[in-house]
Amino acid sequence: MRILITGAAGFLGSHLCDRLLSERHEVIGMDNFITGSPDNIAHLADNENFSFYKRDVSNYIFVPGKVDAILHFASPASPNPQSKSGYFNLPIQTMKAGALGTHNCLGIARREGSRFLLASTSEIYGDPEVHPQTESYPGNVDPIGERAVYDEAKRFAESLTMAYHRFHGVNTSIVRIFNTYGPRMDLEDGRALPNLLKQALLGQPLTVYGDGGQTRSFCYVDDLIDGIVKLLYSDEHYPVNIGNQDEMTILQFAEAINKITGNQAGITFMEDARSTRDPQRRQPDITRAREILKWEPKVSLEEGIKRTVPFFKQKLGLA
Amino acid sequence: MRILITGAAGFLGSHLCDRLLSERHEVIGMDNFITGSPDNIAHLADNENFSFYKRDVSNYIFVPGKVDAILHFASPASPNPQSKSGYFNLPIQTMKAGALGTHNCLGIARREGSRFLLASTSEIYGDPEVHPQTESYPGNVDPIGERAVYDEAKRFAESLTMAYHRFHGVNTSIVRIFNTYGPRMDLEDGRALPNLLKQALLGQPLTVYGDGGQTRSFCYVDDLIDGIVKLLYSDEHYPVNIGNQDEMTILQFAEAINKITGNQAGITFMEDARSTRDPQRRQPDITRAREILKWEPKVSLEEGIKRTVPFFKQKLGLA
Repeated sequence: MRILITGAAGFLGSHLCDRLLSERHEVIGMDNFITGSPDNIAHLADNENFSFYKRDVSNYIFVPGKVDAILHFASPASPNPQSKSGYFNLPIQTMKAGALGTHNCLGIARREGSRFLLASTSEIYGDPEVHPQTESYPGNVDPIGERAVYDEAKRFAESLTMAYHRFHGVNTSIVRIFNTYGPRMDLEDGRALPNLLKQALLGQPLTVYGDGGQTRSFCYVDDLIDGIVKLLYSDEHYPVNIGNQDEMTILQFAEAINKITGNQAGITFMEDARSTRDPQRRQPDITRAREILKWEPKVSLEEGIKRTVPFFKQKLGLA
Repeated sequence: MRILITGAAGFLGSHLCDRLLSERHEVIGMDNFITGSPDNIAHLADNENFSFYKRDVSNYIFVPGKVDAILHFASPASPNPQSKSGYFNLPIQTMKAGALGTHNCLGIARREGSRFLLASTSEIYGDPEVHPQTESYPGNVDPIGERAVYDEAKRFAESLTMAYHRFHGVNTSIVRIFNTYGPRMDLEDGRALPNLLKQALLGQPLTVYGDGGQTRSFCYVDDLIDGIVKLLYSDEHYPVNIGNQDEMTILQFAEAINKITGNQAGITFMEDARSTRDPQRRQPDITRAREILKWEPKVSLEEGIKRTVPFFKQKLGLA
């Protein structure tokens, strides 16, 4: 297949490029580098099945020749208010990537008869009142909240995707991506895993906010990519959760990180005074992925962290 | 003020034109007539304070000269699956009016320093689990449901509006409009009021679905416009519900219609087999409108229906 990937220089986009190239597809990458990094695709420079266009997918985009599939992964995704590439500091670009970007991609998919895959997110569930979250849970998102620029952009993108499927018969699919980690992730992304792993590798005590009772479940990137590719090859049109179901408290997670990395500095508890409240709990119900895609995650937390450490060390200048 | 109104040839847009012209403002109307009607603004043709551009607000729009205020009312809004101008049959246009249209308007507002007012809707609450709905209720909308093309477009428009306010300092406001009726409404709009009033004026039995226990509250258009104009003149930035709190069951409402119009044909009950389920209940909490805008509805149902009947009779060829 000839496959267009937007956000190709991002954490997940670049892994998708690798995986699809390894399966002998031709990949056209697109990115404007406002959050993605050329480093993530530098190793593909000599790959003759890979081409790259520096483009803002929210503007008009044009791809010469046939396009068999489009994976729309372009969007700021970091919830870190301090990060320049987080969606709090790129609110309009985030909303444009979800609305105009998705619209542009669907236009190509309609014209070319391509399979379209939208990268959606567990954030469309907001601060969920139901655990674990099934795909039928409508979510708990305040449309005027500060996080809404990301959440509502993705909800809109899903609705638009379904509209193109229902009204124009476009062959669409939607993956709802839960917390994922691995090499090439943004160390300043603001989420628990990179924050804690960084501290552990630097030999610092791990900072846990509140009592550490908030839960998370973390999916290793190879597992996630595997689920996405299975969805791409399927003929499913409705949203599918892809993520790891192993739920643990942030405190349990911090203890595990210290153990895996051999960090002796322990844990520091801090009051949770952050203004932009993270969800207290988020866990995927992956029944649909199991049934429709015969997919489930395989990489243990210990294994995943071990595979991620070399990348973190390199970024931290410890390698 | 010099005021741009998108959707100026629609039900609410045209009433806004009338009201703002009567207050000596200059009004620039814009509409592409996919759901609005030239009939609604024909009486303004000779008004020297009124100008009109036939434009699709989802495309690039340009307004020469200073713009002091922008009211973005352009959108299909009818939930009738049978109506050619309803959002089920215009799903992409509906999503574009909410995303691209709002983005275009906010761009002008930012450049011109205009007051911006977004026409949002009670539909952002979806099928609510809380009654009455306050502005802080996050809603119950399935992003991939068939109604989502309207609901999510408006939720997105709200998020984008708040992002322009927070990030670019644009002077924005958001009105969440509940069920409204009056002259110039779409008789084929598919909602309970026009359906029942039409039948009553034609001397037919009124069709009530299910047991008629679903509730509605109906606001007369003059009241609604009054609330919107008060919001426009205020400096409020957060969403404000505008609607009538007088909740009644559809059955009570049908009985009232028969009484007001003198229809003797009674009521017919029908099974509710419609595929696109209407919310069972929707009622605004208007505490914020009362406190911030000193607004509340004044027109009784009886009075409102009486003022609406001549328009319906004319449209039905009974006048």
